[in-house]
Amino acid sequence: MSDRAYTLFEEQQKARGINVEQVKSKLKALKIETPSWGYGDSGTRFKVFQKVGVPRNPFEKFEDAAQVHRVTGLCPSVAIHIPWDKVDDYSKLKSHAESLGLSIGAVNPNLFQEEEYMLGSVTNADASIRRKAMEHLLECVDIAKETGSRDVSLWFADGTNYPGQGDIRKRKSWMLEALSEMYKALSPHMRMLIEYKFFEPAFYHTDLADWGMAYNYALKLGPQAEVLVDTGHHAQGTNVEHIVAYLIDEKKLGGFHFNSRKYADDDLIVGTTNPYELFLIFYQIQNAGNDSDAGIRQTVDNIAYMIDQSHSIERKIPAMIRSVLNVQTQCAKALLVNHDEVEEAQQRNDVLGAEDAVRRAFEFDVTPLLHVIREEQGLPLDPMKAYLESSYPQEILARGKGGASW
Amino acid sequence: MSDRAYTLFEEQQKARGINVEQVKSKLKALKIETPSWGYGDSGTRFKVFQKVGVPRNPFEKFEDAAQVHRVTGLCPSVAIHIPWDKVDDYSKLKSHAESLGLSIGAVNPNLFQEEEYMLGSVTNADASIRRKAMEHLLECVDIAKETGSRDVSLWFADGTNYPGQGDIRKRKSWMLEALSEMYKALSPHMRMLIEYKFFEPAFYHTDLADWGMAYNYALKLGPQAEVLVDTGHHAQGTNVEHIVAYLIDEKKLGGFHFNSRKYADDDLIVGTTNPYELFLIFYQIQNAGNDSDAGIRQTVDNIAYMIDQSHSIERKIPAMIRSVLNVQTQCAKALLVNHDEVEEAQQRNDVLGAEDAVRRAFEFDVTPLLHVIREEQGLPLDPMKAYLESSYPQEILARGKGGASW
Amino acid sequence: MSDRAYTLFEEQQKARGINVEQVKSKLKALKIETPSWGYGDSGTRFKVFQKVGVPRNPFEKFEDAAQVHRVTGLCPSVAIHIPWDKVDDYSKLKSHAESLGLSIGAVNPNLFQEEEYMLGSVTNADASIRRKAMEHLLECVDIAKETGSRDVSLWFADGTNYPGQGDIRKRKSWMLEALSEMYKALSPHMRMLIEYKFFEPAFYHTDLADWGMAYNYALKLGPQAEVLVDTGHHAQGTNVEHIVAYLIDEKKLGGFHFNSRKYADDDLIVGTTNPYELFLIFYQIQNAGNDSDAGIRQTVDNIAYMIDQSHSIERKIPAMIRSVLNVQTQCAKALLVNHDEVEEAQQRNDVLGAEDAVRRAFEFDVTPLLHVIREEQGLPLDPMKAYLESSYPQEILARGKGGASW
Amino acid sequence: MSDRAYTLFEEQQKARGINVEQVKSKLKALKIETPSWGYGDSGTRFKVFQKVGVPRNPFEKFEDAAQVHRVTGLCPSVAIHIPWDKVDDYSKLKSHAESLGLSIGAVNPNLFQEEEYMLGSVTNADASIRRKAMEHLLECVDIAKETGSRDVSLWFADGTNYPGQGDIRKRKSWMLEALSEMYKALSPHMRMLIEYKFFEPAFYHTDLADWGMAYNYALKLGPQAEVLVDTGHHAQGTNVEHIVAYLIDEKKLGGFHFNSRKYADDDLIVGTTNPYELFLIFYQIQNAGNDSDAGIRQTVDNIAYMIDQSHSIERKIPAMIRSVLNVQTQCAKALLVNHDEVEEAQQRNDVLGAEDAVRRAFEFDVTPLLHVIREEQGLPLDPMKAYLESSYPQEILARGKGGASW
Repeated sequence: MSDRAYTLFEEQQKARGINVEQVKSKLKALKIETPSWGYGDSGTRFKVFQKVGVPRNPFEKFEDAAQVHRVTGLCPSVAIHIPWDKVDDYSKLKSHAESLGLSIGAVNPNLFQEEEYMLGSVTNADASIRRKAMEHLLECVDIAKETGSRDVSLWFADGTNYPGQGDIRKRKSWMLEALSEMYKALSPHMRMLIEYKFFEPAFYHTDLADWGMAYNYALKLGPQAEVLVDTGHHAQGTNVEHIVAYLIDEKKLGGFHFNSRKYADDDLIVGTTNPYELFLIFYQIQNAGNDSDAGIRQTVDNIAYMIDQSHSIERKIPAMIRSVLNVQTQCAKALLVNHDEVEEAQQRNDVLGAEDAVRRAFEFDVTPLLHVIREEQGLPLDPMKAYLESSYPQEILARGKGGASW
Repeated sequence: MSDRAYTLFEEQQKARGINVEQVKSKLKALKIETPSWGYGDSGTRFKVFQKVGVPRNPFEKFEDAAQVHRVTGLCPSVAIHIPWDKVDDYSKLKSHAESLGLSIGAVNPNLFQEEEYMLGSVTNADASIRRKAMEHLLECVDIAKETGSRDVSLWFADGTNYPGQGDIRKRKSWMLEALSEMYKALSPHMRMLIEYKFFEPAFYHTDLADWGMAYNYALKLGPQAEVLVDTGHHAQGTNVEHIVAYLIDEKKLGGFHFNSRKYADDDLIVGTTNPYELFLIFYQIQNAGNDSDAGIRQTVDNIAYMIDQSHSIERKIPAMIRSVLNVQTQCAKALLVNHDEVEEAQQRNDVLGAEDAVRRAFEFDVTPLLHVIREEQGLPLDPMKAYLESSYPQEILARGKGGASW
Repeated sequence: MSDRAYTLFEEQQKARGINVEQVKSKLKALKIETPSWGYGDSGTRFKVFQKVGVPRNPFEKFEDAAQVHRVTGLCPSVAIHIPWDKVDDYSKLKSHAESLGLSIGAVNPNLFQEEEYMLGSVTNADASIRRKAMEHLLECVDIAKETGSRDVSLWFADGTNYPGQGDIRKRKSWMLEALSEMYKALSPHMRMLIEYKFFEPAFYHTDLADWGMAYNYALKLGPQAEVLVDTGHHAQGTNVEHIVAYLIDEKKLGGFHFNSRKYADDDLIVGTTNPYELFLIFYQIQNAGNDSDAGIRQTVDNIAYMIDQSHSIERKIPAMIRSVLNVQTQCAKALLVNHDEVEEAQQRNDVLGAEDAVRRAFEFDVTPLLHVIREEQGLPLDPMKAYLESSYPQEILARGKGGASW
Repeated sequence: MSDRAYTLFEEQQKARGINVEQVKSKLKALKIETPSWGYGDSGTRFKVFQKVGVPRNPFEKFEDAAQVHRVTGLCPSVAIHIPWDKVDDYSKLKSHAESLGLSIGAVNPNLFQEEEYMLGSVTNADASIRRKAMEHLLECVDIAKETGSRDVSLWFADGTNYPGQGDIRKRKSWMLEALSEMYKALSPHMRMLIEYKFFEPAFYHTDLADWGMAYNYALKLGPQAEVLVDTGHHAQGTNVEHIVAYLIDEKKLGGFHFNSRKYADDDLIVGTTNPYELFLIFYQIQNAGNDSDAGIRQTVDNIAYMIDQSHSIERKIPAMIRSVLNVQTQCAKALLVNHDEVEEAQQRNDVLGAEDAVRRAFEFDVTPLLHVIREEQGLPLDPMKAYLESSYPQEILARGKGGASW
């Protein structure tokens, strides 16, 4: 059935003018970074439920991540979070990763869990706390140099809960000071990815609240600073793909933290709430990937796709497998958009024609396509099944409860 | 200055047709229950910051609550949360409360922190977990009988994170089953207050998601079941005072959990984000308090005003003092609305006149009025100052860090 | 290609345990009512753009609606709006409809466009205006009797823009008065469908603001009163399918007004913003349609599916065709959910398994299935193409500009 | 009573360290521009209700605006909208304004009401439509030169309703092209104020959707381009005062369009939904007004305060009086913030102290202060009463119905 399905799919797409070989090659090139912290316990403010089998240290997290890569072929790198993944010897962690067929991806500083950071880290009114935070940022740059990571991803929880609590403009200048000092510490090949968030854990104002603020800092800092879009960090109703297209056009989109939400920053499995939004993000990316401007194409090529989720109730490894499969699925569907057809409809101001040309790609079932590329890559056709039927889920039960959490 | 200010205030209000003595007597009758858990450490999913001096057990929580009552005269009762406030002998806790001039207020079951409740408590697909939850509800009714509490407040975290995860209609019927069994266990003088919440910690669907669902259950259960409005549990843009008025009109408003928010359920100090909303809630309550229908007046008289907040970064006792003062202030302002004037403007369809008649009351400074009633009640004029200058803040430092938290 | 595609589809679904013949028969039974006003000009508060070829009177609106039915086979009835569709002789309109193979569907009163209704219709502080509104409601019941319509759909724009502008509780009682009087006028076979809306055109409070209010009125009125869910009339983040499931479970869901939105009540083509939400609504409906309770099954059978959109920039007839096709597509996908599989996963609390069982159905391409049922029904395989290639789009150009609008 | 009230007020403020004379002088300097279109009929997409007495042409609009200035002393200039206020001879309109004690304020192009602009004006896929829009922008610059206006305010309705409908990045570049050409046409003393809007009338994407996009264009264009903040043009939950502080800090805040909303862009009377937000905006402005950086102080000095509302149900002139009084009131309250006190609390990380120092200013009743400055300026103490008791409301009835509208 699978062969016939693919044959039919290929015929169908060719008839629409889609270059299926190109689609396949682009899909094979898709890489999605998983986060070490996504394998540990996490939860809501009400409760962190502990699961049996959660990794107990950074080394075990990489082992779990290797399982995701083994069955999907999509996840050769793993982002780390300092100090959650602090080890005495990063070369050892690096070797461990490599022995598993993985590399260490983005380094993520943590500036929200020390007692001192309660009222801000790099924007704290207390200069000594700002200094402490600064040292941690510089430490993370050093770690990235050791691990060979290209990207340092910055998310700041800094903000205030009440009007008047902080001086918004002073905090803005302290943020710039910190970013500037850190920027200078980067090696030439490194990037600083600046994340923003609409709210939480700060509830009145967040120092880095939206893409505009992140972009403005990136602009002031220079070409190695770019914006990181977390799909859950926007106000309700925000058109995320618009922001994505905008930032690519300014050559300032550095990467994504993928996740899904219905209300706030729910950090659910990406693609489970509104899969069409994820498809439309990829549609914008691929549209820009065809641009005549080489700088824009280069921006697109360098986008770091990363998962950033909080699996409160899900089994961790299956949740990660589901996440990257959902990204792959929507990326695949978006590759079926016939951009010429869309453009022609746009040019003749044919609203319904243009909408149809985009939506139609979403309605195809890409399962036959994904099966074929997996087969060609020597991967299991059904990665989830392959994982669940492997011995790994049983093996990790021996870890017991009480693994890593945040 | 204070005397002259009050004289002027009184003149001014009398000239507007306000019965100042009645206002004073209503203000003196205002009681706001504080929650035991509001004195402990709490936080966001990212971090619970620990404060020095936080109470280490239910007895110390009542001691802290007594301080709030001592300086404000507003808080003679304290809500408890089971199992956070579980003690061997509730009569001992009751005596302790009484010795401090306090009583035990609403009893709050906790159905979200046991490992079994990860996928629901009373709506869990597993019947044995539902039973466990049921037993806890019944236990709380028993505790309420021991403590002499009139109200049991019910908030359920139950819900799902993904489409398909749970059977929405089955869960609905399980909820009704649990509430029905619990309802039967109530003594005749007791009330069951049913809270609802838009989302969090469930992110796809929450079994008790809005006032309509809470109301519908209350309707099915009978007169001892009423709705509890938490001011932070609504979608953005919801007109909370409309819901308040609606529920009073149906004689189904049982009480409030007061807090404030800008985005989601931020649980900030009530009255710090949009004080006008709090004022408008009291305006609706007082408007209904003058109704010709005795049932509606009785509903208004029995409203339980309670604080429910999460003081992540604030000093606990001052945060609670600020909270109840903010409630008192907006209640006082609302008492200055001249309802006849509003009604006349409404009747002649004078939009701007009616709006002005309401808003004008909000613009008065009620400080002179509050000073006078405090003076008459033998309370400090400035409760916050009185607390901060007392020896208590120093004394509790001896408790050290690591007190009660959730 | 089409035949092979269907063969493959059928095999695939049978292998999953789906009864394809049943799916086909349910799909053939799907009926979606289109609104007469959806064929006229409409717009935003900034501008109503006028299109060439818009129908100039109710008779022409039915002619356009007949085109949608001709190519889709889905739309045998048309809702009317009074006074927009006021005619001297409704039997003439009815005959016209029948001659086109159509019937007259729901009757919609209009209580928001007369100067008197500026501050409310049935909830206006002025009794004579309330009476005028009441007469219009009764007139619409009479019209429904003449047209043979089962449903009268009620949407009230009534509300206020400012705190204090209206007496919320008095307006609540006036609303009940009006609905009660109207309810008494219904014939036994008729239904009153009560719509609610979060906001707009009233911006401070809307008298019928949410499903809870509509439901509460329906409950007070009796079995012929039910709730009408307009998919765009909720706060951001609301779980609409939860409300749908809830109302069905209470046997109080009467019907839908379908449309799509990203922000407010944007009234866009249904299924273009978040098609997954539409799918999940049908999943809930079909899940209830299998219930053991005959009353619930009957509720499901009687749901009125109606489009209610505002085509500001789209060509009207194609926009309507696209709308009903999108509904059909998502309904078809939802019919591919294997409910046993979902239920089993739910029972063993397998979060990811249950989610997958639902989402997987969404990922199928139902085009082969739709082609086959169209073929079997003698309909064009591609309804949009059939319409665009017919002579009708050209013919109506003769109508010129300046057709019906609101 | 009034004198005693002011004496008391002054004593009280002086005791807090407030320089009352400075407050008075700042308040006397406050100028708020009213919009010509705010005097005409406007409404929602459902209905524009027509009022008796609405001005029939630009000249009468200025006469109405003069009434607002006469009683409030706050509104010496009036913004115009082209073509709504198109006249043959702008020098005549200018003389008329001057004869009424007014000047012509910002010029507002209209690019959303011509049939051609249905799918965009400066971002339309059709080059000839883009050119037409461009010509209109240039025409407005010319008009501004004739009227002596400093500011041209730009709001674009441009955007799309469906994914794929328009090429987001191409539209972005067309927007920049248009703004660049217009920028070059400005005289050296002129400013281009770029407005943004979250959504409406475009519902999928709006070309200029947020402050970040407006700011980015302003940055590319040069020092004469600045951002215009419309208080109603943000997503729910957005911290508007944060954006205000941010833009001032970048010396790119050009002005405000004031209005109020609960849900979307409701365009209600400013200060009627959340007056505290308006106060907090002024708190940020005044905080920046004390900055040591002369460029920031200059930015603050040049902020254009403008009303932009849609009075659907209100009497126009009273609605405008209420609007500017609400702005004056919150500006006055914000002037009572003791910035040293706030700063000291911020420096010692005293969350509750800092919050209190800001909120306390809001709680003062500034009526005595406003009475005194009105008295000193020869203005009526109660501007609304003065207007309502004048003969003007009666006189304009002669205009009948059917005045200017949009």
